[in-house]
Amino acid sequence: MESLLFKGPWLPGIGIADVGVKGGKIVSVGKVLREEEYQRVIPGEGSALIPGLVNCHGHAAMTLFRGLADDLPLKTWLEKKIWPLEAKLTAQSVYWGSMLAMAEMIRGGTTTFADMYFFEEETARAALETGMRGVLSRGIVAGPGLERALAESRQLARDWQGAEGRITIQLGPHALYTCPPEVLNRVIDLAAELDLAVQIHLAETKGEVDECLALYGKSPAAVLDEAGLFHLPILAAHCVHLSPEDIEIVARRGVGVSHNPASNLKLGSGIAPVPSLLERGVAVGLGTDGAASNNNLDMFTEMRLAALIHKGVHRDPTLIPAHQALEMATVLGAKALSLEEVGAIREGMAADLVLVDLRGPHLAPSPSPEAAIAYAAHASDVTLVMVAGRILLEGGRLTTIDEERVIFEARRCLKKIAG
Amino acid sequence: MESLLFKGPWLPGIGIADVGVKGGKIVSVGKVLREEEYQRVIPGEGSALIPGLVNCHGHAAMTLFRGLADDLPLKTWLEKKIWPLEAKLTAQSVYWGSMLAMAEMIRGGTTTFADMYFFEEETARAALETGMRGVLSRGIVAGPGLERALAESRQLARDWQGAEGRITIQLGPHALYTCPPEVLNRVIDLAAELDLAVQIHLAETKGEVDECLALYGKSPAAVLDEAGLFHLPILAAHCVHLSPEDIEIVARRGVGVSHNPASNLKLGSGIAPVPSLLERGVAVGLGTDGAASNNNLDMFTEMRLAALIHKGVHRDPTLIPAHQALEMATVLGAKALSLEEVGAIREGMAADLVLVDLRGPHLAPSPSPEAAIAYAAHASDVTLVMVAGRILLEGGRLTTIDEERVIFEARRCLKKIAG
Repeated sequence: MESLLFKGPWLPGIGIADVGVKGGKIVSVGKVLREEEYQRVIPGEGSALIPGLVNCHGHAAMTLFRGLADDLPLKTWLEKKIWPLEAKLTAQSVYWGSMLAMAEMIRGGTTTFADMYFFEEETARAALETGMRGVLSRGIVAGPGLERALAESRQLARDWQGAEGRITIQLGPHALYTCPPEVLNRVIDLAAELDLAVQIHLAETKGEVDECLALYGKSPAAVLDEAGLFHLPILAAHCVHLSPEDIEIVARRGVGVSHNPASNLKLGSGIAPVPSLLERGVAVGLGTDGAASNNNLDMFTEMRLAALIHKGVHRDPTLIPAHQALEMATVLGAKALSLEEVGAIREGMAADLVLVDLRGPHLAPSPSPEAAIAYAAHASDVTLVMVAGRILLEGGRLTTIDEERVIFEARRCLKKIAG
Repeated sequence: MESLLFKGPWLPGIGIADVGVKGGKIVSVGKVLREEEYQRVIPGEGSALIPGLVNCHGHAAMTLFRGLADDLPLKTWLEKKIWPLEAKLTAQSVYWGSMLAMAEMIRGGTTTFADMYFFEEETARAALETGMRGVLSRGIVAGPGLERALAESRQLARDWQGAEGRITIQLGPHALYTCPPEVLNRVIDLAAELDLAVQIHLAETKGEVDECLALYGKSPAAVLDEAGLFHLPILAAHCVHLSPEDIEIVARRGVGVSHNPASNLKLGSGIAPVPSLLERGVAVGLGTDGAASNNNLDMFTEMRLAALIHKGVHRDPTLIPAHQALEMATVLGAKALSLEEVGAIREGMAADLVLVDLRGPHLAPSPSPEAAIAYAAHASDVTLVMVAGRILLEGGRLTTIDEERVIFEARRCLKKIAG
């Protein structure tokens, strides 16, 4: 594997400095490093070098359903559109949908993505091929498919855990309303046995919380906590409708949160209490959710939304400043997913790095790279993407994905599914 | 001027069709047009051809201040940052700031922009040079500069009204809190004399409304109405804090509104009652406001925000569907600015047209171009921009702007201003 030197980009929290990469790791971060110690020098002047973006929550293969079901009430969206489509999914369609998602994510500077879906081994295979870092879970719901979902989760961990140092398998109980406590107990046992962390949807809608209060007399966060789930390393996606007590629980138990602003807005779910969570020290990352409810997998869009909407809703322009939005998209996201070697540019960390060109007219003449990245940069300003030292995008081209074929195959899969 | 045929793009509300352009106008919109009647054929397959985007509210030269003052309370932002910077503006800096704004706007598919600022003749000159359509006003505030502002407004209209059929001059009383009724009367007289429409800021912050209630015993909208301002063709920017009675007034008087979601969120102003305004038939366009409070001039971002935030805040995913967000960015914006010949693709309209490539992986395999444009497209998907039949962007290059020089000069101006 090539050794590389990024010469003189701007680094978040550091300023202009060189970054050296060897053996897939960041080996040196310094003001000026010696060019002759590296096989290749990549000029960084006029660019920001940021940690690869971490997409904390999604369903990659749902790119297939992008634009198929927009602007509908949640119930109609799920029952009339998404579920009937998902019933027709095949391993092949999940593979091509995942490949399409990764083409988009890499182009937008995402190096790590979390995923919860069916045929998850296909998403793992796609991640292995594309070079991305994946944190993958097979979705688990109660009902006739439960045993199969648990068995497939176990198999997924056996086959894929730690593959190439880039694949992390987690367990994916879908949500409390689809996984009552007796199912959560099975998940907890399996997590302990296989030493796995967990991803779950939590308090996405008001209706979900109201139903939970009626059924259990307490909030979903309280039920999950009492079930013991929060003793595991865990990421809770959405967390839109948390009470102050719920926020306390989440903070006390060290639950990671994926804030998914575009999806929460588009489905009319609401706006998560992110400033309160951050204030309590919760690791709040950012996620796109699936493309059917977004409709993109663009972490720059999520950063901008996270930096904007809380200011507007709370009428406080000091909330979630630019640097914090960038932290959510990187180091906090990594923490929320229990990943230790990514999310920051530091010696010893994996070389998951993204070069963002700051010279476009839409960023000029700005003297603040953080603000440029959080408020104005586009996915198209990403000029180089590296995961574990391997370049996945450069010169406008994906190095590991035949994009035309992926789009062609995704269209063919969609045709089979949606007719 | 070249005659041109767009062959087979998707058109909003129409579907796949050819569009013929001659003499700067759209001369034909049909299923299949004859290629031999045009000098040039532009292939449209895989692209959407949309009306040029209309940026209803902004201060172009404020691109100079992009990223200089972020995440601050409004009062600090204005008093400590923006006003001291603006005090040092020169004609030259407004010219280069405006040129920079136009480089960004054209790249993002904006063909028409509204503007209110100082040295507005420099912005007019820049618009003339870049080929954009401008709706320009010299900002007017009460105080020692009032007579000069009125005289410059008059001069601006005399020198620039109707220039090349692309420049429209309006009057720009800044806001009620800076232009009390006696000043508004002067504006009304001048508007009647010169036959000009008006742009004004209205109800941007809760504080502005509270102060007005304390001073006049009624809302800003009610005071403006009683002053007679709403009998003129007028665009009111922001309209964040309108009461139901205010909405009635705005609707009854046919006031156009510029919804500026990014700026309203970023400054912590709040979220405008856009669904109610649209329901009452108000022409609500979209605006970026200045780059100092956004921080971009990207109408795709504004469309996405408009389509997302109201769904989230009202917990109703059916609000502002994709096609309506696109209408706000085009035909409704044109109406709000009292422009009759732009905003739609129809025979006889000015050929202000934008080609958006829908073939990127981030839009695939979507069968809904409207959703692609409103929710997932980037400024970088714009492949061709035309104003009045003249191509301003093609093949990734601006045809009327020396981008490198503009960025260089903008940096030099900023250095003089901000040190």
